[in-house]
Amino acid sequence: MGAVFQFWGEKLSFLRKVEKIAEDIKTMRVRGAARIARTAVEGLIITAEESEAKNEEEYLKDLKISSKILVSARPTAVSLPNGIRYVMKRVLKAYRDGAKLEELREETIRVGREFIQNSFKAIEKIGEIGARRIRDGDVILTHCNSSAALSVIITAHRQGKKITVYATETRPRFQGHITVERLVREGIDVRLIVDSAVNYYMDGVDKVIVGADAVASNGAVVNKIGTSLIAASAYLSGVNFFVAAETYKFSPETTAGRLIEIEQRDPTEVVDREFLKKNKGVKVLNPAFDVTPPQHIDLIITERGIIPPQAAIIILTEVFGWFVEEEDMY
Amino acid sequence: MGAVFQFWGEKLSFLRKVEKIAEDIKTMRVRGAARIARTAVEGLIITAEESEAKNEEEYLKDLKISSKILVSARPTAVSLPNGIRYVMKRVLKAYRDGAKLEELREETIRVGREFIQNSFKAIEKIGEIGARRIRDGDVILTHCNSSAALSVIITAHRQGKKITVYATETRPRFQGHITVERLVREGIDVRLIVDSAVNYYMDGVDKVIVGADAVASNGAVVNKIGTSLIAASAYLSGVNFFVAAETYKFSPETTAGRLIEIEQRDPTEVVDREFLKKNKGVKVLNPAFDVTPPQHIDLIITERGIIPPQAAIIILTEVFGWFVEEEDMY
Amino acid sequence: MGAVFQFWGEKLSFLRKVEKIAEDIKTMRVRGAARIARTAVEGLIITAEESEAKNEEEYLKDLKISSKILVSARPTAVSLPNGIRYVMKRVLKAYRDGAKLEELREETIRVGREFIQNSFKAIEKIGEIGARRIRDGDVILTHCNSSAALSVIITAHRQGKKITVYATETRPRFQGHITVERLVREGIDVRLIVDSAVNYYMDGVDKVIVGADAVASNGAVVNKIGTSLIAASAYLSGVNFFVAAETYKFSPETTAGRLIEIEQRDPTEVVDREFLKKNKGVKVLNPAFDVTPPQHIDLIITERGIIPPQAAIIILTEVFGWFVEEEDMY
Amino acid sequence: MGAVFQFWGEKLSFLRKVEKIAEDIKTMRVRGAARIARTAVEGLIITAEESEAKNEEEYLKDLKISSKILVSARPTAVSLPNGIRYVMKRVLKAYRDGAKLEELREETIRVGREFIQNSFKAIEKIGEIGARRIRDGDVILTHCNSSAALSVIITAHRQGKKITVYATETRPRFQGHITVERLVREGIDVRLIVDSAVNYYMDGVDKVIVGADAVASNGAVVNKIGTSLIAASAYLSGVNFFVAAETYKFSPETTAGRLIEIEQRDPTEVVDREFLKKNKGVKVLNPAFDVTPPQHIDLIITERGIIPPQAAIIILTEVFGWFVEEEDMY
Amino acid sequence: MGAVFQFWGEKLSFLRKVEKIAEDIKTMRVRGAARIARTAVEGLIITAEESEAKNEEEYLKDLKISSKILVSARPTAVSLPNGIRYVMKRVLKAYRDGAKLEELREETIRVGREFIQNSFKAIEKIGEIGARRIRDGDVILTHCNSSAALSVIITAHRQGKKITVYATETRPRFQGHITVERLVREGIDVRLIVDSAVNYYMDGVDKVIVGADAVASNGAVVNKIGTSLIAASAYLSGVNFFVAAETYKFSPETTAGRLIEIEQRDPTEVVDREFLKKNKGVKVLNPAFDVTPPQHIDLIITERGIIPPQAAIIILTEVFGWFVEEEDMY
Amino acid sequence: MGAVFQFWGEKLSFLRKVEKIAEDIKTMRVRGAARIARTAVEGLIITAEESEAKNEEEYLKDLKISSKILVSARPTAVSLPNGIRYVMKRVLKAYRDGAKLEELREETIRVGREFIQNSFKAIEKIGEIGARRIRDGDVILTHCNSSAALSVIITAHRQGKKITVYATETRPRFQGHITVERLVREGIDVRLIVDSAVNYYMDGVDKVIVGADAVASNGAVVNKIGTSLIAASAYLSGVNFFVAAETYKFSPETTAGRLIEIEQRDPTEVVDREFLKKNKGVKVLNPAFDVTPPQHIDLIITERGIIPPQAAIIILTEVFGWFVEEEDMY
Repeated sequence: MGAVFQFWGEKLSFLRKVEKIAEDIKTMRVRGAARIARTAVEGLIITAEESEAKNEEEYLKDLKISSKILVSARPTAVSLPNGIRYVMKRVLKAYRDGAKLEELREETIRVGREFIQNSFKAIEKIGEIGARRIRDGDVILTHCNSSAALSVIITAHRQGKKITVYATETRPRFQGHITVERLVREGIDVRLIVDSAVNYYMDGVDKVIVGADAVASNGAVVNKIGTSLIAASAYLSGVNFFVAAETYKFSPETTAGRLIEIEQRDPTEVVDREFLKKNKGVKVLNPAFDVTPPQHIDLIITERGIIPPQAAIIILTEVFGWFVEEEDMY
Repeated sequence: MGAVFQFWGEKLSFLRKVEKIAEDIKTMRVRGAARIARTAVEGLIITAEESEAKNEEEYLKDLKISSKILVSARPTAVSLPNGIRYVMKRVLKAYRDGAKLEELREETIRVGREFIQNSFKAIEKIGEIGARRIRDGDVILTHCNSSAALSVIITAHRQGKKITVYATETRPRFQGHITVERLVREGIDVRLIVDSAVNYYMDGVDKVIVGADAVASNGAVVNKIGTSLIAASAYLSGVNFFVAAETYKFSPETTAGRLIEIEQRDPTEVVDREFLKKNKGVKVLNPAFDVTPPQHIDLIITERGIIPPQAAIIILTEVFGWFVEEEDMY
Repeated sequence: MGAVFQFWGEKLSFLRKVEKIAEDIKTMRVRGAARIARTAVEGLIITAEESEAKNEEEYLKDLKISSKILVSARPTAVSLPNGIRYVMKRVLKAYRDGAKLEELREETIRVGREFIQNSFKAIEKIGEIGARRIRDGDVILTHCNSSAALSVIITAHRQGKKITVYATETRPRFQGHITVERLVREGIDVRLIVDSAVNYYMDGVDKVIVGADAVASNGAVVNKIGTSLIAASAYLSGVNFFVAAETYKFSPETTAGRLIEIEQRDPTEVVDREFLKKNKGVKVLNPAFDVTPPQHIDLIITERGIIPPQAAIIILTEVFGWFVEEEDMY
Repeated sequence: MGAVFQFWGEKLSFLRKVEKIAEDIKTMRVRGAARIARTAVEGLIITAEESEAKNEEEYLKDLKISSKILVSARPTAVSLPNGIRYVMKRVLKAYRDGAKLEELREETIRVGREFIQNSFKAIEKIGEIGARRIRDGDVILTHCNSSAALSVIITAHRQGKKITVYATETRPRFQGHITVERLVREGIDVRLIVDSAVNYYMDGVDKVIVGADAVASNGAVVNKIGTSLIAASAYLSGVNFFVAAETYKFSPETTAGRLIEIEQRDPTEVVDREFLKKNKGVKVLNPAFDVTPPQHIDLIITERGIIPPQAAIIILTEVFGWFVEEEDMY
Repeated sequence: MGAVFQFWGEKLSFLRKVEKIAEDIKTMRVRGAARIARTAVEGLIITAEESEAKNEEEYLKDLKISSKILVSARPTAVSLPNGIRYVMKRVLKAYRDGAKLEELREETIRVGREFIQNSFKAIEKIGEIGARRIRDGDVILTHCNSSAALSVIITAHRQGKKITVYATETRPRFQGHITVERLVREGIDVRLIVDSAVNYYMDGVDKVIVGADAVASNGAVVNKIGTSLIAASAYLSGVNFFVAAETYKFSPETTAGRLIEIEQRDPTEVVDREFLKKNKGVKVLNPAFDVTPPQHIDLIITERGIIPPQAAIIILTEVFGWFVEEEDMY
Repeated sequence: MGAVFQFWGEKLSFLRKVEKIAEDIKTMRVRGAARIARTAVEGLIITAEESEAKNEEEYLKDLKISSKILVSARPTAVSLPNGIRYVMKRVLKAYRDGAKLEELREETIRVGREFIQNSFKAIEKIGEIGARRIRDGDVILTHCNSSAALSVIITAHRQGKKITVYATETRPRFQGHITVERLVREGIDVRLIVDSAVNYYMDGVDKVIVGADAVASNGAVVNKIGTSLIAASAYLSGVNFFVAAETYKFSPETTAGRLIEIEQRDPTEVVDREFLKKNKGVKVLNPAFDVTPPQHIDLIITERGIIPPQAAIIILTEVFGWFVEEEDMY
């Protein structure tokens, strides 16, 4: 990014701040899908406040530079470009509708704050909407430790519904233990099982609720390894499978054919070094996520409402703009 | 059993030995489906050799007493009554066909040794038959640590076929580690994965091969927890699912409606006591096995040939006698 | 509602009329999804004509009061809020686009009449669109007595196509008898069967066509008890399953997570009192509707075109406004 | 049959009695699958007791004449030829094994009585075997009014298991009312529903248990109209579907390609004459049975044990003789 | 059309040209979905350039006349009305937004050229988007000879990915031979098989990619005979099935209930006349296309992005306007 | 084989004849599954007639030598070992039951002739049994040119049932043309289609009937390439899929794990040499058969009755002996 700075010189002080933000995202000082998206949008608000552009066109150029810097900070994060696109789509529309420089600044700030606001309330809103689908007496199975999924369960519980939860331990990192702690604290009846006991208990389950790391344009859900296996089991047992996901988890890239890459994590999460030394030649594969196909998902609960997975593309279209035209947003 | 001894008195020295065997089975000094069955059949051979019966009827009475003692040593073991029934069915038939006392003794010993012999060779035979189904280049997924399943894989490997194996770690007791060690020692290309990564890799798998703790009369297979989940994944991906099982694993009880009971094991296999103390109220459920329905199983490889699961009842009929008539065997 | 009236005083004469309309809906003097929606929209037209608001904001307040009164007259009716939302969405947009008081009044009246007009023609339009999918010689199965479904069948028949219809008797109230009468009058070849004979005849059926009481945001269809059972049979036999439903049957509430409640009707529709007295303790359950999942539905025929069930949310988005933002419409 | 009598003359007094029995079956003085089979076998016992045959061949000729008369009394009854074949198969085997005239008589009588005895105990035995599959707390759905299915339910209930039963009313003849009465008398918690509410409640059902009018060689089950529809619903919801059927309900004819014919009953069971007069041209179709395919059946509970439907042919082979060779039995 | 000309007289010289274009389409001098659509849109551009309309209303009348002439030139071509609707929708919107006569002309020309431009680049764009879904080492099966499908394969190949292709010969006209020639020329590893060998090789296939002649509003795909059979095979083997289709192949007519008609081609494509003469009475049926249901399609790759088939209606809504309101566009 | 002859010397003239028969089979002077099996059994009859054995043991040794020579003549033919096993199983049983030398000879000849007789009548018998499953008005689809399948169709037609047949052309060798000729000659209404049009017409088909080259022990059917694809289509459309196969087509080898090998035929059956020369590098794959899994087969029609595919192993058990014990038969 250095080259750009040399070129734009001293005047562009906002760029310094935006680059600082990008740095924080790149080095993972800022983490978590929601925080990353909000922080990036802050970068656009700063641009709006500090850009010294003289006319609308210069202003948009500044915004696009900031966008590019921010998006490239972590190209694989799904929420980051969504935050940027949310703002840019609306600002570009205002420009096309004839808004003047100051109006564009105001719109940028207004829309940016709206996004941040929505993001903060998303988990709560998902809890509220999702809890309406939970009945008194429901037995729910969850996997890993998802704020959105837990928000649904805990909201229903606080509404006085009696809930029983099966929580998987979630190998290799046992995030299920955190889920158990959280639910026990709420006073919810929770049962811990190993991941592979899912099918054994599925017949007695009413609903599976999990979170998402990303939702593809065709409604496929990327989530913690094991999710697609649980979905297969639920599908064959006729059990409803719900995903709780904030809209900024929806991946516009996938409409353009790009696949969400699945990270391979360190073998030592699975076995100790001793084992590796002793069993020369064994490969320990440790994928972080898998992909659940839309056919195995009944509903996706977002902060904007409940949709069938095949309507994921509507979220992408309505909230973040249409298909492959995105290119010119940054 | 004491009462029986007082009644029968000194002469019945064989009963002492049979009771000793039963004791060894009960206290698990003798373990493993195959060993239990062979040891029980030894009990019948001893009865044949040492019974002081004066005529055919007395001899059968002695045999039935031994049978009862042996079978009740561990009522839930599937292989035990199978061993007994294998011998009794043939001896009773010889009796009905008019065999005399000495012929009955000889038949008991001959058939008993045949059973023991078959049992010793069963794993090897399964390896030989099953390996014919493995092609050069096959990618095989296995779960837990089954001698029968490994026999198929290793035999194919020794025939010069290039095999790649995915082995699940098999929570909570990590039997997959033993599988890995065994396969690495053979020089087979093996990849260890957590149980919940099964669906992620299923698309690249050619065959799943697992063992069995028991095979029900309708072809359902009882095996290590997680097996039915893997079968669900294989089914939905169109991957062949094979079970390798000795015929003495087939459960005649299930034809009479009795279910195979699934053992719940200790929570501390799953979490440590610390966790339980900290999270008061959490239930840790730890079922040892689950049941894979016949619809998700393509073939069962036995030492007597390959059958579709729906033909399990033929094994029960042909090898161990027909349906509910078993009652009068012991 | 009394408190509101005291507060607003004499001037608000339109409220009297609106409340009268709400009363008629509440007491079921006005019945039927279509009539309820049209009558409620009349209430908004009256508000537009008689509101004494001095400016745009006052006018919108009046409209929202009327909306609230009308919608709360029968909270479970799906068509009622749809009628209100259809008008309010467009009036609010006009307001945001800068329309003045008189223009808002006119828009309210124009859009209100458009809705009423569309509603009147919806059944006919569905008949016309749906009939294009019927081929000469088709064998159609229908359940209960749906105007929309019959419109498709009769329109196709009048176009000269030879149609054979299986009509279920539809226990417990035998609405199938009315269907038979209607079709016999049209000269259509009709066969009456008991509800449980559906699967027996399904192999010879080309299409199932039923109506809907409500369509959820994920494309699930609420209709007369038995519909989901017929859909299961059609699904397994590879027979097309069509739903004919006016767009005001689409339930926006379900996008916000609310479920459509299934009414339990009186046991005496199923058995006589004699039976109940004689069989003390028996529970007679008599649900009025069931829910057919979108996976078992091929197409939904609306007066605005044919959609796959997963696109139900497009109807809700395009026709009645987007997701959970609805709150501020009334 | 008259011609035969003239030919055989006075001596063949047993034929008179056999013909009388055949007459009783034909005119339905003897009804019900079990009673018909037992009565026909009585005819063979009478033949054994009264035949004046001088040698084995003459005796077999007499038996075959009786068999032919009995079987042709009601060619569509499944149990009738099964009874005959049960006896004849064993007598013919004895003949081939060298049995003499008196031994053949004795064998006929012994085997005949065995069949009758088994038949009397079959329902009870099915109850005992089937009840082992019922768990405490099970919710069971049943259709029509089957002694065998009710035997399973009531036996489980008497064993102290808490059972809840959904009983369908079973149009058009409401046999479900008899089921309700029977279960209420036993003190079982029973819920009556219309036939088409089956899918609505299926999610809360643990097992479906129905009877059978006939079981085909491929495991397909012929039973009261509506059974196959319930099976479709159970299949799609992952609910176990059990059939309780005595072995004499298994149809050997279907191995030879013959189909079981489905009776069409009188329209006035469905509607009154008034309706028919008013709606000229309507066809009221009233099939008595439908056919449930083996893929939708989990287990068949017989008095000889539990089998998967694909093993139906084993019952036919083992109990009633092999495939198409039946021709020469009568 | 003659009557129209007489009525409009000399002044309407643009109509001559438009009619000439229509004639070229009708007589198939202009062929191919893309060329037909582009040529028809040229007709609208000519109308814009040469219409002598005096005001906006007259101008729209002229445009609608041209539209009607062009669309009726080949009523079954899917792309033709799409081209017309693409332009008309935007021009009508401009008119409603208050555009003046000259602005309307300009908009017509601008939008028309945009459509033509997009059409030219569609195949290339589909290749680029689709290739992102192809992995190194993928085995792809294709059917017939589709530019869009081949664009995906060849683009991926040129990106350096190793691709193996199974190409079906595609009876009766062997278009698979052209596909083979094209791929061999590119240096791609290609295997030719008869159409019926598809299932034999399906297990080793990673993705099926085919083109489309038309995409219905519910996501069903009309394509070369055999496509739906391949999709059935892929579906049952768990192999991804992709369709590559330009957006102008999406059929708006099907939202209005109209079916896409399947052409029956000449028998002599299948057998020679000799055969027909020799086998009097044989019917040789030769349908050109079949219909693949959306349930068997994973993704549709368009030049505007990738969608699940159920979202086909979004393309129709967003790109070509909403549902049945289309009537008044021409 | 020369070495054997030197060892046994002049006396063993029967071996000359047996070796001559083996030679005829090896060089394909004797072809066709049925003829091969009958000819091989002739070899055993000759052995019985001409063996100069002095006692039972010598005689069996002679029989086993003949068996070995015959079976190794064409190791991949399924019917050949079946014929041998049919005879040997019964002769060995007679020996175990105490039959003397002359009785063994007679039994060999009797059973051998029985097998030959059955084989001659098998096609006719299959026609008779299968035709009972055909209803008046049935639309049947068949593939390739199978005597057994045509026997069913033609028998039904001759019984006066109106049958319509879809015949696939069956690339690459167009055996469907022979089928058409045969059916036209019978006066049956026949429609010829290309192989890939199968799914297009499947909805209007009542039954698919095909032949078999081999039936595996799990009921999988090896038949002309394309069969498994048609079965997939039938399965998804809910159309019955019947296989007509003589019992000597059942493959006992597959119970022992051996797979039936699929022959790859010459590329020039698919394309001409010109094409291959022009498209250097293209591989033309031409497998002769594929394998239809038992899940997609409803019934197998044999000359001994109708079975579900899962009961194939019963045919192997009952007719040709049990599982892997076959080794000692020759």
